[in-house]
Amino acid sequence: MSAGTESSHSSPVLDYLHQLHSEYSSLTEGQVATYIPELAKANPEWFGICLATTNGAVYAVGDAEQPFTIQSISKPFVYGLALEDNGRLAVMQKVGVEPTGDAFNSISLDRTGRPRNPMINAGAIASAGLIAGKSAKSKLRRLLDTMGLYAGRELALDHAVYSSESETGHRNRAIGYMLRNFDMLDGDPSPTVELYFQQCSLSVTCRDLGIMAATLANRGVNPTTGKQAIRGEYVESVLSVMGSCGMYDYAGEWIYNVGMPAKSGVSGGVIAVLPGQLGIGVFSPRLDEHGNTVRGIRVCQDLARHLDLHVFNCGGTGESVIRVHFTAAEMNSSRVRTSEESRALHEFGRAIQCFQLQGDLSFTATEALVRQVQQDFDGLRCLLLDLKRVLGINESACRLFYQLLVKLSDAGKSMVFAHTEHIPLLRRYMRVKLEKRFGELYRVFDDHDPALEWCENQLLASTLSHPLERTVAQKDYELFHGLSDDELSVLLPLLKRRSYQRTEVIVHAGDEARELFFVARGHVSVNVTLVSGATKRLAAFSAGMAFGEMAIIDRAPRSANIVADTDVECDLLDVEDFDKLGVSNPAIKIKLLENMSLGLCRKLRKVNRDISVFE
Amino acid sequence: MSAGTESSHSSPVLDYLHQLHSEYSSLTEGQVATYIPELAKANPEWFGICLATTNGAVYAVGDAEQPFTIQSISKPFVYGLALEDNGRLAVMQKVGVEPTGDAFNSISLDRTGRPRNPMINAGAIASAGLIAGKSAKSKLRRLLDTMGLYAGRELALDHAVYSSESETGHRNRAIGYMLRNFDMLDGDPSPTVELYFQQCSLSVTCRDLGIMAATLANRGVNPTTGKQAIRGEYVESVLSVMGSCGMYDYAGEWIYNVGMPAKSGVSGGVIAVLPGQLGIGVFSPRLDEHGNTVRGIRVCQDLARHLDLHVFNCGGTGESVIRVHFTAAEMNSSRVRTSEESRALHEFGRAIQCFQLQGDLSFTATEALVRQVQQDFDGLRCLLLDLKRVLGINESACRLFYQLLVKLSDAGKSMVFAHTEHIPLLRRYMRVKLEKRFGELYRVFDDHDPALEWCENQLLASTLSHPLERTVAQKDYELFHGLSDDELSVLLPLLKRRSYQRTEVIVHAGDEARELFFVARGHVSVNVTLVSGATKRLAAFSAGMAFGEMAIIDRAPRSANIVADTDVECDLLDVEDFDKLGVSNPAIKIKLLENMSLGLCRKLRKVNRDISVFE
Repeated sequence: MSAGTESSHSSPVLDYLHQLHSEYSSLTEGQVATYIPELAKANPEWFGICLATTNGAVYAVGDAEQPFTIQSISKPFVYGLALEDNGRLAVMQKVGVEPTGDAFNSISLDRTGRPRNPMINAGAIASAGLIAGKSAKSKLRRLLDTMGLYAGRELALDHAVYSSESETGHRNRAIGYMLRNFDMLDGDPSPTVELYFQQCSLSVTCRDLGIMAATLANRGVNPTTGKQAIRGEYVESVLSVMGSCGMYDYAGEWIYNVGMPAKSGVSGGVIAVLPGQLGIGVFSPRLDEHGNTVRGIRVCQDLARHLDLHVFNCGGTGESVIRVHFTAAEMNSSRVRTSEESRALHEFGRAIQCFQLQGDLSFTATEALVRQVQQDFDGLRCLLLDLKRVLGINESACRLFYQLLVKLSDAGKSMVFAHTEHIPLLRRYMRVKLEKRFGELYRVFDDHDPALEWCENQLLASTLSHPLERTVAQKDYELFHGLSDDELSVLLPLLKRRSYQRTEVIVHAGDEARELFFVARGHVSVNVTLVSGATKRLAAFSAGMAFGEMAIIDRAPRSANIVADTDVECDLLDVEDFDKLGVSNPAIKIKLLENMSLGLCRKLRKVNRDISVFE
Repeated sequence: MSAGTESSHSSPVLDYLHQLHSEYSSLTEGQVATYIPELAKANPEWFGICLATTNGAVYAVGDAEQPFTIQSISKPFVYGLALEDNGRLAVMQKVGVEPTGDAFNSISLDRTGRPRNPMINAGAIASAGLIAGKSAKSKLRRLLDTMGLYAGRELALDHAVYSSESETGHRNRAIGYMLRNFDMLDGDPSPTVELYFQQCSLSVTCRDLGIMAATLANRGVNPTTGKQAIRGEYVESVLSVMGSCGMYDYAGEWIYNVGMPAKSGVSGGVIAVLPGQLGIGVFSPRLDEHGNTVRGIRVCQDLARHLDLHVFNCGGTGESVIRVHFTAAEMNSSRVRTSEESRALHEFGRAIQCFQLQGDLSFTATEALVRQVQQDFDGLRCLLLDLKRVLGINESACRLFYQLLVKLSDAGKSMVFAHTEHIPLLRRYMRVKLEKRFGELYRVFDDHDPALEWCENQLLASTLSHPLERTVAQKDYELFHGLSDDELSVLLPLLKRRSYQRTEVIVHAGDEARELFFVARGHVSVNVTLVSGATKRLAAFSAGMAFGEMAIIDRAPRSANIVADTDVECDLLDVEDFDKLGVSNPAIKIKLLENMSLGLCRKLRKVNRDISVFE
C-alpha cells in the first residue's frame, strides 16, 4: 500500500515529514556536483523525502517522483549482487571490508592490490566485475532486473548521464586498469568500467530509494511487492559495509548520531536502513565538502533523533515471544469430556504444557522458551508448541527446537507442533533431522485443537481405568442422570436409533432444529467454516453425550455442521416429543432441563476458564 | 536466574557452549601480554565463556569464575559514566567518535588535540577525567559503584596489578600531560591517570563480563538484578563507539563477520553486545598481534554465525505489535446486555475498534497501528488501546499516540487507553500534552473491561431509544418471559425485595447458594480475586436480569463475589421455593428452566464468539 496520497485525515507520519520538508527547504548550504556536466543541470531546489516501512507503508513528500541518477548509492546493491553470484569468500578475495577514512574517489588498494571496501570507486568497480553474465548485455540485464526488484518497478538508464560519465570517466578507467594489474579484474577492464558507469546512471526517484532501503531493512524482500531482491543471508553483509564504510570519512560520527547503515551519492541522494523496521530515502542535490547531500544528512539526523531509530537503541524483547502459556489443567481441547475425564485432566493436566508463540523466533527468543520449558522438565509429559502467530524463524532457533526434541524424547516425553505450514525452514530442518528414534514422541498437527486433544488422549490413556473408546448404554446417557427406571421406561421408547458413516454430515448449518442427539458410539465434531474458507472445530462429543441441545432451547436454525469423525451410532429425540413431555411427564422434562442447564453451566465455566488463559 | 548449574537435563544452550569450549581449548596460538609484569603471570590455559540474555538467563562454562583485571574493557563503561555526568555535547568536546585505524596505545589526537575516540588510551583517559566527584576517592567510588551495577555484584581493585600498572605506565602519563597541554584535561593530570590505572585494574570474572554486556544489551538495566547501571538514552552512544572503534584496526571485518559492538582487553577478555537480546563475555589470555584474545575472537565469530546474532540480520516485526484486534460487534464487555442492547452493539459495534498491543512500541510498530486505525477512520467512533502486554515505549511512539488523539478528537471521536500503569513515559507524555480541548474524548482506565463498557455505553446512549438506567417491573424480568398472568400471580408473591448500598457485597464467594437474584434497579458486578491479588470482573448485570442461577443449577458454593456497583434493589427467589414449583406448578418451573437455559445458551454463544477473537 501507499500512504503517500493526501486525504482529509492525513497520517501523523506524513504530517511530520511535511513539517521536516518545509523546515529544511530554506537550507541552501552546499553546491550541486559539477564533475560530470549532466549532474550540474540539477535544480538545486529539488527536495524529496521518503520513509518506507517493512510493513509496506510508503510515506513520500516533496519532489519524491523527480528522476535523478543513483550514482554511488548503487554500490551496496551491486556489492549484494556480487555476493549472490560468487559467495562471501570469493568476493572477499577481490574486495575488502575495512573503512579507509579517505574520500569517495580515492583508489585505496591494500598491500595486495585489493580495494579496501566496496563503497569506494575501486571496490565498486571490482564488485561490478563480479556480476554473473556471459556478455556485457546480460550483465547489464541482471543489474537492471535486480535493481527493479529492489525498487518494485522497472528501472532504466539515463543515457545522457551515462554518456557524460563515460566521456569524463578517465580516473575510473585508471582504477580499472590498476585493478587489472593486481588481478582484481579478469580480462579487459573496459566493459566492467562501462558497466560501472551504467550502474551509476540508473534513473531513480526518491520514492524508489525509500523502497530500496526498506527492502534491505526487510531482509531482502521488497515490502511493497513481496518479491525477494537479494537472498536474506547476504543482507547483513551489505548493511555491514554500509555501516562501516557507507559515509566515507564520516562513519564514526554517522553511526554515533544517526545509527543506521547508510549510503549517499553525488547526485544528492542518500539512503538509510533500520533493519527490521524501515528504510529512508532523501534527495536534495546540494552537497557538503564530503560529497554528501546537505539536506539529506540533516533530515536523516532529525528522523533518527525524533523517531528513536538508532540501531543500537533497543530494549529486551525475548520474553514476549510467548503469547500464551497454559497447561491442560487450565484449558482443554474442544472435545467435550466426561466428568471422569475432566477430573483426570484437571488433576494431571499440568503435565501437558502448551505455548502459543509469536513474532520472530531468534536465538534469544527461543532460548527464553526453552528455558521456561526446562524449569518444569520433570513434571512435563507433553510439550505443545503452537506456531500460528510466528512470523519467522532462523536456523539457530530450529537447532534449539531440535535439541529440545532430543532431550524430551530421551526422557520419554512428547513434543508436538501445531501450525508449521508457513515456516518452511522449520519444516525442512525437522524433516532433515528427523530420525526413527523419536517414533510417536514427535508429531506435527495442522491446528492447535487436534494437537491438544492428541496430548490429552495420551495422558488419559495412562490415567483412566476404562478405555477412551466404548459404547454407552441408553440409560447411562449424561442427560438422563437422576431419572428413575419408570421414567426411563417412558423416555427410552421415544428414542430413534440412527447410524452414520465416518465423514457423514449429521446436521447441516442452517437446518431447522428438529431433534436432540445422543451419542451411543463413536465421535462427532461441530465444525464451522471460517471467512478464510478453513474449517474450525468448535466442539467434539463422545459416547454418552448429547448434542444439538442449544438449537432445541433457542429454536434457532442449526449454527454449525456436525460431522461423524468415526462410524457413529446416535439416538434421536424428536423436539415435539420433548415438548409433549412438559404436559404428559413434567417431572421428566424438568430433570432433562436441569441436566441440560447443568451441562450448559459446565460448558460456560470451561469457556470462561479458557478465556481467562488469554487475558 | 542462573542457568549455569549442571543438572540431569542440561540446557541445549549450555551443551553448545561446552562444545565450543572444548573445541577451542586446543587452540594455543598467541601470547599472554607481558607489558605489565603482573599480567604475564596469567595461566595461558584459562578459558571461560559466558552468554547472558536480556531475560536474565546466564550461561557460563569453563573458567568463568577466574578473576582477572578488566583492562581496556573498562573503557566503554567509563565513557558511559562520562556521558551521564556531562551529557553528549560536553563529552564530544573532549573525546571524538571516529575510528583511527591505529593500535590501542596510539596517542591519536585530532588537529584540535582531542583524542579521536574513547576506545584508545588517550580518549579513555580523557573520559576518566570527566567522571564527576569532588575528590579522587569519590570519583573512584562512583566508578566502582557503577561497575558493580553492571556486574550485579560489588567489584574491587586488584592492587598488585594496579601497582604494576602505575609503576610502568609512563606512556599513559605522557598522554595525560599531552591532554592537559591541549586543555582536554583540567588541572593536574596525575590523579586522572591514576584513576585510569585503577579502572583498568578492576578485578572481574568472565561471568561478570557476560552480565555487563547483557546490561548494555538491555538498555542499561542489569537483567539479573533489574537495576539501572546507565541511563537508557546513553547506551546507543556507548555501543556506537564500541561498534566503530571497539576492535581497533579490525572494525570493518569485525562488524562484517561478527556484527556486534564489542570491546577487548589486553588481559584476554572480550565482550560483545547484541542490543535487545544478549551479551557475551569470553576470557582467554593468549593474544593475537592486534592485542585481541585469540580464542575469544574465534568464540565470538562462531557464536555470531551459529546463533544468527548479527545486529543487521533481522526481518520485519512491525505488524506483530497488534496482539488482538476486534470491534464491539464481535466481542463485548462483561456487562450482560438486554436483547435490544445486544442487537444495537451487534449492528453498530464496528464503530468501536479495540486493539490489544504487545511488545516494544517503537516508531515502526506504532506506525503500523496508526495506519490500521486510519484505514477505517470514517467508520470509527471510539478507539480502545489496551497496553497490558506492552513491554516498553519510546518517545516517538508517544508522539504518534498524541497526534492520533488530536486527529480523533478534532473529528469528535474518542480515544481510550487501558493499562498504562506500567508505562510511565506514556503517562507523563499524555499528561504533559493533555489539554482541556479533549474533554470527554480522552479517557484512561485501569482495565480493559470497564474501558470497553464505557465505549459501549457511549455508543448505546446515542443509538437506543430508552435510557440505559431504569427500574424494571417484576413482570418484565427476562426469566419470566412467556409466563401467563395467572402464573405470575403464583410466582411474584414468592419474591422478597432487598436493598443494597453501593459497594455492598451481595454474595460472598464460598457461600452456600440459597437464592436466585433478580435486579429491579441498579448494577451489580461479579468479581473474582486473581492470584496476583487484583480483582477481575467476570460479568455485570443491569435491571431486569437474573444472577446467581449457575450455583442454583449445579448446587455448588458461590464461585465469586457479587458486588453492588450502584445502590441496588433486588428480588430474591428462595431455592426451596424454586424446587417446590416442580411439584406444585411444573409448567412454571419448566418455563423458568427453559428461560434459564436460553440465557445460558446466549452467554455460551457470546463467550464462544469472544474466544474466537483471540484465536
